[in-house]
Amino acid sequence: MQQGTNLPRLGSYNRAVVLGAIQVSDGISRVQIAERTGLTAQAVSVIVRRLLDDGLVVEDGSAPSRGGKPRTILRVDPAAGYAVGVHFDPGRLHCVLADLAGRPVSSAVTTLRAVPEPEAVIRRMAAAVRRVLADAGVPAKKVLGVGLACPGPIDPRDGVLLSPPRLEGWSRVPVRLMLERATGFQVTIDNDATAAAIGERWSGLGRSAPSFAYLYLGSGVGGGLLLDGQIYRGRTLNAAEFGHLTVAPDGPRCHCGNRGCVEALCCPEAIVAAAHARLAAGGTGRLAAAWKRDPRRVGHPQICAAAAAGDPLASEVIGEVAGHLAVAAVGIINILDVDLLILGGPALREAGEVYRRTIARAIGSLTIARSLRNVAVEISPIAADAAAIGAASLVFHAAYAPHLTSLLREGTLMRERREPPNPATTPPGTAS
Amino acid sequence: MQQGTNLPRLGSYNRAVVLGAIQVSDGISRVQIAERTGLTAQAVSVIVRRLLDDGLVVEDGSAPSRGGKPRTILRVDPAAGYAVGVHFDPGRLHCVLADLAGRPVSSAVTTLRAVPEPEAVIRRMAAAVRRVLADAGVPAKKVLGVGLACPGPIDPRDGVLLSPPRLEGWSRVPVRLMLERATGFQVTIDNDATAAAIGERWSGLGRSAPSFAYLYLGSGVGGGLLLDGQIYRGRTLNAAEFGHLTVAPDGPRCHCGNRGCVEALCCPEAIVAAAHARLAAGGTGRLAAAWKRDPRRVGHPQICAAAAAGDPLASEVIGEVAGHLAVAAVGIINILDVDLLILGGPALREAGEVYRRTIARAIGSLTIARSLRNVAVEISPIAADAAAIGAASLVFHAAYAPHLTSLLREGTLMRERREPPNPATTPPGTAS
Repeated sequence: MQQGTNLPRLGSYNRAVVLGAIQVSDGISRVQIAERTGLTAQAVSVIVRRLLDDGLVVEDGSAPSRGGKPRTILRVDPAAGYAVGVHFDPGRLHCVLADLAGRPVSSAVTTLRAVPEPEAVIRRMAAAVRRVLADAGVPAKKVLGVGLACPGPIDPRDGVLLSPPRLEGWSRVPVRLMLERATGFQVTIDNDATAAAIGERWSGLGRSAPSFAYLYLGSGVGGGLLLDGQIYRGRTLNAAEFGHLTVAPDGPRCHCGNRGCVEALCCPEAIVAAAHARLAAGGTGRLAAAWKRDPRRVGHPQICAAAAAGDPLASEVIGEVAGHLAVAAVGIINILDVDLLILGGPALREAGEVYRRTIARAIGSLTIARSLRNVAVEISPIAADAAAIGAASLVFHAAYAPHLTSLLREGTLMRERREPPNPATTPPGTAS
Repeated sequence: MQQGTNLPRLGSYNRAVVLGAIQVSDGISRVQIAERTGLTAQAVSVIVRRLLDDGLVVEDGSAPSRGGKPRTILRVDPAAGYAVGVHFDPGRLHCVLADLAGRPVSSAVTTLRAVPEPEAVIRRMAAAVRRVLADAGVPAKKVLGVGLACPGPIDPRDGVLLSPPRLEGWSRVPVRLMLERATGFQVTIDNDATAAAIGERWSGLGRSAPSFAYLYLGSGVGGGLLLDGQIYRGRTLNAAEFGHLTVAPDGPRCHCGNRGCVEALCCPEAIVAAAHARLAAGGTGRLAAAWKRDPRRVGHPQICAAAAAGDPLASEVIGEVAGHLAVAAVGIINILDVDLLILGGPALREAGEVYRRTIARAIGSLTIARSLRNVAVEISPIAADAAAIGAASLVFHAAYAPHLTSLLREGTLMRERREPPNPATTPPGTAS
């Protein structure tokens, strides 16, 4: 049943729209906000007054205008609030403190050995949160919350990791609750790829795009979706699992139970296995020489670097991966009909440009509506840190982005999520 | 840039929400509307008063209530307005007159021989429109408009067919304009699969589902999407092209230029080719016997019927098609995370149940978030007529469904679409 709306909901939606317009601009006047949002000058003026009073926005000089008096420029006050983003990837914890403009202020990287136990990982996360706050000298009361980006699948209602690949023994771990207890902050959780997409929406390539698909390459392959200005998460918050599109029905078994998934063919582990199999069968070139010295030194970074340098064996392996990604990308565009595909994530490395070119060519020549539009395929400028910055953006996004759902009564899934964090009511962090 | 909203837009959105709540119910009281939409009793009362005044809704008896006085039951007045749906599929024109409740009132089917010329097809369409109106005795002033469902890809801004498969010589034909001139009615155009999905939303399985994917099997394979209560069309209105997911990267060339698309392997033409190839290589059973008598009599309907009757060769062919559809369906669910997949379209025939079972099993055992939700896979009760009824629903949907976009300022694509048709201003049809 579709939901009606009312005046108070309309007000807070419009407030978020105005804040969003200021946030994505590099300085904007009240008149420009009215032009871009379709709101009246009077409505904008009232909302901006309140944002100034709340300290979220500052007046920052003035710009010349046609004829009339100079227009005052508005910006989000970066120091008005902060969020901590934690990206948990098997093997690595990446923690970033970001200001309200989405810019990283301090960061910490922790390497995790073997398969770590949940309790130990949560302790390391909490320590990293304390450290990035201390490094930047930001008091806990300025922190809106902690965003946690984890490998999927997750159960968002309970903030639980289900049974992520590469994490044996991690079954239904309530990471959200554990991290809230360990830090004292409210924690927002999402899968790493969705977090990266939200980061892109908040501070990257996706700031002004109404719709985009985000293909995330980390230790697995995931995705995120912005459709008509809204992050699309699906009924269980597990949409955009681009890594589990089948691109080779008779291909290798994937951890998800299916065969020939993008992830089974394109994740770093699969790339290393493919290169090693070829190297074991013989080969010449830089990579083969390195392999002969010590096979363990030929990892995913070395293979990507060798491909970028023109090594034939590495180029062949990366070229095949690019081909699989392109098959998936054509399917993604045929289903979603978006005109921007962003590539990001730590596993892009030097292979990113090969992937980008191959994908762009396939989309331009094989998608069904190719004569109607150009699809831009772009590499995220924050590709490697996307998930951690995205995790911090989760907090800003939950608090400040204009959510259409907020106009309507909350749906079943949404009803079970908590209120967005509020600096005034956030419990003091352990770092304060 | 996300758009703000205002009071008048809020009013017409809420009006559409109330009308929608009445339309999808089998009789509903004002109190129930308030409960289901989250609107106040007072707001519902004001809106219902206006819908009664406009003649769109009627009071229809009363139902007992807990304690208080009996509640008046509201229904959409089916005779308040009509729409004509035209489904154009190479080889066949199907025309339906539907009342405001979405029920077919009269219909006409015209077989088209060879590859028909655009002008001749438009003349036949206009004749069919006149005929269904005359058969039902519905005057032109009661007709809200004509909906036209065509094979994609289409260019929605101009109402143009681009270069549909199986229609050589049909390149950039402005069918919308041509049909408006030939009938005098305003024409709404969409691709056949999206129309079928809208029909399902309006009067079929999708009436109460917040989200679903619709897999449409006609002479091609297409799809439609309802996401969070809104039909999702994509940037160029060519989203949900499920027929062009790759399910066999080394498979046969598809007309779209790609390889191993669902459509290239699962459309009736491909099914007939696969069966004939096997029959030519020998075989026993009912289908082989029929083939020996006259290969031309072994078409798609006969193959589906034979498979349903247990003929081994036909079952093998249909089983392989079901397997390809299941690979695509798993990808669709992994990307969209919806909990309802509807199968429809004229090419389902007796094979529908085999497809349904195979797809449901694959989704239940291979999708990434399978432990979080059950996905219902259901055959549309109006499968064979889905596109024609859906075409009529296009008109109702444009006029009456609660479009979130109507709350916001219109986007680039939407701005180029015209106002929804209005019975008071529709030019008189040629049939009146």
